[in-house]
Amino acid sequence: MRLIRFKTGTEEKNGVVVNGGLVEIPHSLLEASQAPFGDLERKEFYSLDDVNILPPVQPSKVVCVGLNYRDHAQELNMDLPEEPILFIKPPTTVIGPDNPIIYPPQCHQLDYEAELAVVIGRETRFTSKNDARDHIAGYTILNDVTARDLQRKDGQWTRAKSFDTFCPIGPWIETDMDPSHQDISLKLNGEVKQNSNTENMIFSVEELVEFISHIMTLNQGDIIATGTPPGVGSMNVEDIVEVKIEGIGTLSNKIKGY
Amino acid sequence: MRLIRFKTGTEEKNGVVVNGGLVEIPHSLLEASQAPFGDLERKEFYSLDDVNILPPVQPSKVVCVGLNYRDHAQELNMDLPEEPILFIKPPTTVIGPDNPIIYPPQCHQLDYEAELAVVIGRETRFTSKNDARDHIAGYTILNDVTARDLQRKDGQWTRAKSFDTFCPIGPWIETDMDPSHQDISLKLNGEVKQNSNTENMIFSVEELVEFISHIMTLNQGDIIATGTPPGVGSMNVEDIVEVKIEGIGTLSNKIKGY
Repeated sequence: MRLIRFKTGTEEKNGVVVNGGLVEIPHSLLEASQAPFGDLERKEFYSLDDVNILPPVQPSKVVCVGLNYRDHAQELNMDLPEEPILFIKPPTTVIGPDNPIIYPPQCHQLDYEAELAVVIGRETRFTSKNDARDHIAGYTILNDVTARDLQRKDGQWTRAKSFDTFCPIGPWIETDMDPSHQDISLKLNGEVKQNSNTENMIFSVEELVEFISHIMTLNQGDIIATGTPPGVGSMNVEDIVEVKIEGIGTLSNKIKGY
Repeated sequence: MRLIRFKTGTEEKNGVVVNGGLVEIPHSLLEASQAPFGDLERKEFYSLDDVNILPPVQPSKVVCVGLNYRDHAQELNMDLPEEPILFIKPPTTVIGPDNPIIYPPQCHQLDYEAELAVVIGRETRFTSKNDARDHIAGYTILNDVTARDLQRKDGQWTRAKSFDTFCPIGPWIETDMDPSHQDISLKLNGEVKQNSNTENMIFSVEELVEFISHIMTLNQGDIIATGTPPGVGSMNVEDIVEVKIEGIGTLSNKIKGY
């Protein structure tokens, strides 16, 4: 099932993606993620073209994992990390597919990073990898936008990853998916730049949920970004960046000048 | 004026600290921070000993600044940074003075860092240092608890700073204070370990608000932690750590084993 948040006029609504459009549901997305489609009350039908698609969740934190693809580590000639390296993107970075990524004036190299995002379904602390799936509402697509020049300058990654609009997510949450072997790719203005499969992850989705939940409480709606495959590169104003994940769909955003 | 959040029974309330106790107010703390005390409606009086003191705000993010005291940089033989180095503590780290800091099992060196915390009073984006004071509700005390061994191991600071309970704040927000020259000190089990003055900051409170607001939107209640002076060291289970800032008061927490 694909759960979507959208806006018609000024009203924000929840829905389920169906053939050719979406059907509004009077349930919260995380409530809906626990139920079979047949059990959901259904309201009006909309064409996807007639609505404004919002980020599918408003996370209280986005916990990101650094180097997590074997093929990316090889590309960089780096040893595989013993443990995941974490950083956090604040909630103010989050935008949906209908919002532009803003190129900040103090950045001179703006990079894309295609990532699979895990959406947490309920409060999670000290869980094990075997139980991790019970805590996951579903999966969405994320672009970990990075001011690469500032990342290099600072050493610490936080500033470079934390500008407003630097965390596009969406277009919806796929609740029924095996995250362990899905193609993940990125196109810039139609040209393929990243192309891998989630089977190349060093730490699996379940291992990441276990690891992070032993550090901090994960809240309903929080997001874990699972790292990017090889082929990272830069974007310019007016570019269109598209991240595609097999089984979910495509997240597309435009780059806009400040 | 000193604004406090507290609990009696199961109810969470707001108040103003007065001689010998506090008086409950039916206003939000950030609403109260904009008004003179005389304009506030006042309800019941409580002794501070009879209430449970809560963190004065529930920030959507805690933005922290790395090396920001000249005397601390000298102690470490490091050059002064050209720009502030940022990291973020997630909201799940925040506790009040009546909660213990939990020593995580995977950490073997748990350090204290006394810091002055700025509480943002209203949504702030692209402000200047000259206008920064208009965006500040007040000041509180913060202990930037750090798993130093994991900080060294990771290189990135996020994991080491992000464990639940690693951001004690409080006991209240002081709304009327000049942050530029206040004594700041820390005692561990009664012994002075850190002792400096905010005049030793490399980047002033106003410069930090300007710098951060050019990266991300700061929301009402968000916190900026302004860095720690020299004398950082380690804590053990059962220790009592007290951070004192002139003009605000003392934030005291106990360390508890997991």
